[in-house]
Amino acid sequence: MDETAVHPGPPGASYTVTIRVTAHPHPALLPRLGQAVSSVGAVVVGMDLVEVGAAGTTVDLTLQATSEEHVATVTAALERADYRVRHVSDRTFLYHLGGKIEVTPRVAVRTRQDLALAYTPGVGRVASAIARRPSDAWALTAKGSSVAIATDGSAVLGLGNLGPLAALPVMEGKALLFKHFGGINAYPLCMNTATPEALVDAIAAAAPGFGGVNLEDIAAPACFWVEPELQSRLDIPVFHDDQHGTAAVVLAAVLNGCRMTGRELSAVRAVLVGVGAAGTAVAEALLDAGVGDLCAFDVDGIITDGPGVQPHHARIAARCNQRGFKTLSAALEGADLFIGTSRRGAVEPSMLAGMAPRPLVFALANPEPEVFGEEMAEGAVVATGRSDFPNQINNSLCFPGFFKGALAARAAYVTPAMKSAATRAIAACVSDEELALGVIVPSMFQARVHEQVAAAVAAAWEAEHPGTPVPVPQSFAGWSDDGL
Amino acid sequence: MDETAVHPGPPGASYTVTIRVTAHPHPALLPRLGQAVSSVGAVVVGMDLVEVGAAGTTVDLTLQATSEEHVATVTAALERADYRVRHVSDRTFLYHLGGKIEVTPRVAVRTRQDLALAYTPGVGRVASAIARRPSDAWALTAKGSSVAIATDGSAVLGLGNLGPLAALPVMEGKALLFKHFGGINAYPLCMNTATPEALVDAIAAAAPGFGGVNLEDIAAPACFWVEPELQSRLDIPVFHDDQHGTAAVVLAAVLNGCRMTGRELSAVRAVLVGVGAAGTAVAEALLDAGVGDLCAFDVDGIITDGPGVQPHHARIAARCNQRGFKTLSAALEGADLFIGTSRRGAVEPSMLAGMAPRPLVFALANPEPEVFGEEMAEGAVVATGRSDFPNQINNSLCFPGFFKGALAARAAYVTPAMKSAATRAIAACVSDEELALGVIVPSMFQARVHEQVAAAVAAAWEAEHPGTPVPVPQSFAGWSDDGL
Repeated sequence: MDETAVHPGPPGASYTVTIRVTAHPHPALLPRLGQAVSSVGAVVVGMDLVEVGAAGTTVDLTLQATSEEHVATVTAALERADYRVRHVSDRTFLYHLGGKIEVTPRVAVRTRQDLALAYTPGVGRVASAIARRPSDAWALTAKGSSVAIATDGSAVLGLGNLGPLAALPVMEGKALLFKHFGGINAYPLCMNTATPEALVDAIAAAAPGFGGVNLEDIAAPACFWVEPELQSRLDIPVFHDDQHGTAAVVLAAVLNGCRMTGRELSAVRAVLVGVGAAGTAVAEALLDAGVGDLCAFDVDGIITDGPGVQPHHARIAARCNQRGFKTLSAALEGADLFIGTSRRGAVEPSMLAGMAPRPLVFALANPEPEVFGEEMAEGAVVATGRSDFPNQINNSLCFPGFFKGALAARAAYVTPAMKSAATRAIAACVSDEELALGVIVPSMFQARVHEQVAAAVAAAWEAEHPGTPVPVPQSFAGWSDDGL
Repeated sequence: MDETAVHPGPPGASYTVTIRVTAHPHPALLPRLGQAVSSVGAVVVGMDLVEVGAAGTTVDLTLQATSEEHVATVTAALERADYRVRHVSDRTFLYHLGGKIEVTPRVAVRTRQDLALAYTPGVGRVASAIARRPSDAWALTAKGSSVAIATDGSAVLGLGNLGPLAALPVMEGKALLFKHFGGINAYPLCMNTATPEALVDAIAAAAPGFGGVNLEDIAAPACFWVEPELQSRLDIPVFHDDQHGTAAVVLAAVLNGCRMTGRELSAVRAVLVGVGAAGTAVAEALLDAGVGDLCAFDVDGIITDGPGVQPHHARIAARCNQRGFKTLSAALEGADLFIGTSRRGAVEPSMLAGMAPRPLVFALANPEPEVFGEEMAEGAVVATGRSDFPNQINNSLCFPGFFKGALAARAAYVTPAMKSAATRAIAACVSDEELALGVIVPSMFQARVHEQVAAAVAAAWEAEHPGTPVPVPQSFAGWSDDGL
């Protein structure tokens, strides 16, 4: 159908809607409704009879579509077939109603005595103890399990500079993942700041209550300054997930893609498109891991060194494009690995057709990948950033365990060894049997992924800081949690 | 006993400890242990037999003491009586282990489809909708139920400038109360800032994710500038609880104290000691409510107007001390109402003995009140800030409902009418029957207090902003929560 031709992506969970229709009773009503929906390319995932009455039969049709326009097409098709569309409920919006996180007590607040412990006068003793020995805050408050998810909303997903308020649902989503996969209490700090300096000041000011800072959705090139500057001012780990979380998971996938297709990392010919926050970190991770042949392109073509070039581009350019390609299609000819950290349209499927046999194609743009799997030839190992396709290159494989490990070790900053340990732990979670099925990254729903990442990250910190004692709080008259 | 004489306060829940002792078996062991504890003035609240074995009988003695030193006295007394003290566990510290709050999901995160809604790609649509229409954030994120509890730790409880980290357990305690009594998600923002300007900048930066800001434990006089400055920069209510929450509850208690003792507010002779954040707000609330005769004292004596005087003192001085008292004891002679927002020792019980019959004595210093109830003559109506005595003048009676109402009305700032409505609602929660029992403030455990405060505050905003529509989010294809 024409209507679906303009929506190249397949129907997905993000456009799940429930359409309530009323129709004249008929024995074939449900199949006919299903057919009306399928005829315009949407996928029916459920039909629920709501009511059979004098006014007709009311049915809730739950279906997946590809876009907002596609849903409009579906309702138009239903109306053309003379069904009365009563209501369209969009599951995505319903899911977000009232927000996705809450702040809840970990202790009982039932009686006056509880209050005398939790608040005045009891809490005054705890505050005094922390004033005397600040490290006690790690045990006597939520600091030790808390991470700030800080953003200025300058690069929200792949959607651009939407600002801090519009970034909030994304940060809440991230907080869910932190808790679900890492057991970490993460709270969004959506900062209304006009400059990178103001952003650093605001996050640094808010940091005392947190054990780590996850920077998120901060645009390049500011992010390259914000992260080290903030780290230099704090004694807790600062980790820009769009850079290093992405790089850790991509590199893990590359390692496993090579393992699956029998490639040596050092012999891989790699092409990367989109040298922003993620792309820069991925390129550096690939180069640091031993990839010798990398071509990196941005919107203006292959990136170069020289006057007027942004420092992060110059840094990459100095280490890549050694064979002097001028165009993306030339660079892709015979390449083993394509990594897109750009946007849909940045590469044509036809260009990718010239890659080596069994190419590794990582199309990581969000929410719409550079290419979809079905646009690739058979044999291509395709990964995207989306949760509704196989081989999701998703930072969720890294950051929950990464911070869990960093908090457990009470790391004061992020080290290269911690990032490398996370990468290796993620890659190692895919067994040879799984690899044989075309799986190159583990599922984030496997709890052991996060546990193993956490253990590896904590061990990496501890190996380099063997003398660092984890302070054990000691207060008046001693207190302990053994047996009481 | 000598040991207890130096601890004027009674044993309370904040010094509840569990002492594990091992002793030779004896039929009268438990009574003897109880006697050993009581003999030094502590109160046994429980005895649990842990183990009877070859090494002796092990008992957990849970008791309330008055201070850290008092607990040491108890353990010394037990050891003198030849009991082996194995372990002292302090309930207050145990209660705080790991922190008192956590961040938890409000939605399911069980499947890949859930993730596709909560995070990419689904959340991108929600972010885009908010970017198009920012008011949708009130419905599609937790903003509409979230309050920042912001502090710089410059005046933590009555303990002074302990800094932001030591303030964290207090803010966590406050977050518990917000949730328990108001259903509000409150999150601590303990700000490491060196100046009031930097504090305002940091809170303003972090504000987008919140529907209101509760300022807490910010020292005077900075707090008098911080609150209006921050309010002028934000479109959500900003409320310095130490000032206005205290004032609302104190004024409600004064109204009920007058009601109980047959006084007219306008005829009350009032004396206030401690013109800091709380004292200033209380004094102004009393004067605004019609108290005509108020004497206000600070550490240097009666406050005065004139060159070099702090603006908040000058503001009060211009309206009080009309009878020219020079000393606190002179002012207290025959006074009806004493309000202490100072510290223990700021007034002598002997000075209070000269007050009018059935005086209202509100000793609000925390954690140690200016005087304890048992130091007062019978007939005095005594209130303190502590949860372990009757008539607790506690801000918890106000702020949960206050913010609940402000958020429900989507108030853009705090109005005098909202504060006044909260005061009247709190006072009205004490029935005549309760009043007859000496109760002048309701218990914060009565849910109706918070509901009635919320309703009154919301109504007060709406009465002054009748045309303000509460925006109903409308996004693609419509979405609703009716029946789906």
